[in-house]
Amino acid sequence: MAMGFVREIAIATTEREQLIDLTPHIQAIVTELGIKDGFVCVYVPHTSAAVSIHREVDVADRPRLDEMLDRINPDPATPHYTKAALVAPTEVLIVKDGKLVMDDDQRVYFYEFDGPKQRRIIVYVTD
Amino acid sequence: MAMGFVREIAIATTEREQLIDLTPHIQAIVTELGIKDGFVCVYVPHTSAAVSIHREVDVADRPRLDEMLDRINPDPATPHYTKAALVAPTEVLIVKDGKLVMDDDQRVYFYEFDGPKQRRIIVYVTD
Amino acid sequence: MAMGFVREIAIATTEREQLIDLTPHIQAIVTELGIKDGFVCVYVPHTSAAVSIHREVDVADRPRLDEMLDRINPDPATPHYTKAALVAPTEVLIVKDGKLVMDDDQRVYFYEFDGPKQRRIIVYVTD
Repeated sequence: MAMGFVREIAIATTEREQLIDLTPHIQAIVTELGIKDGFVCVYVPHTSAAVSIHREVDVADRPRLDEMLDRINPDPATPHYTKAALVAPTEVLIVKDGKLVMDDDQRVYFYEFDGPKQRRIIVYVTD
Repeated sequence: MAMGFVREIAIATTEREQLIDLTPHIQAIVTELGIKDGFVCVYVPHTSAAVSIHREVDVADRPRLDEMLDRINPDPATPHYTKAALVAPTEVLIVKDGKLVMDDDQRVYFYEFDGPKQRRIIVYVTD
Repeated sequence: MAMGFVREIAIATTEREQLIDLTPHIQAIVTELGIKDGFVCVYVPHTSAAVSIHREVDVADRPRLDEMLDRINPDPATPHYTKAALVAPTEVLIVKDGKLVMDDDQRVYFYEFDGPKQRRIIVYVTD
């Protein structure tokens, strides 16, 4: 008996490096499945992309994970693989009363490090 | 049918930057729910705090993740958002025979980067 | 009623620092349990080892997470604890149609930072 559901999100990136907010896509899957209290796993099946949850970036005092990655990356020739390894291709979230439990300013960001490309994000949801 | 349980831990931090050991709080939830073999997800719904599992810090040869973050942070004005993004707001654990499977010296640490503040930690547990 | 399964992988590392590909071990557990669509959590119960998912390292344009860690580590005396804390002891994966959903070039790597040692990896799998 399958207790969890596996869904897929398809996106197209347009820049070499780019952040795309996945939060509404993930919430839509949770809503469609009718999950009340549950768990979500997000997986990026790519070696030059990643996923991270943090403060929104469209504000002046945004988190500067991108700048940190540029500063510490040891490989100017192929930075995308090392950046993707550090940011990591996985994230997890919790659902309460049908909603992703998050701070109002938190977002789930897809990190593109070698775009533009067609990308897939795999989402596992269970109650 | 809900298979997992969502619980909340409330803490108050007292310093600007501070580590708080969440391990006993999480083990207490697992014990209260009577989970034998299972899975735990820990989520911090804040943009200037995070969670990380590593060696205890009250020893001479402690891990120095805090010092690493100070060294690599690109943003002296608002370091808390970037630090929180890198350490990340999520963790996962496994339960075996009613106990969190961990090394004797491992702890689940809440990372405060912008305290003192009232903070919440959301915990999902399933068998 | 237990819905998930907890299994253990035992490995022996032979170098001070070493990467070991856990992917076939984890896929073997998923196959043995007959999981079709599901979720996997990998946990390393050690304070000087970790787990990370990224591009394979046996290629010229490999990710250089190891070099990044050497560059940013603040503690030359006991680097293993800080490195293990940053890479982190946990990972999660998704199973679809009986297979781990991954890029062809992605691997789940065990990171040894203080070998050689006997090591355990705990794996939780559910559908």
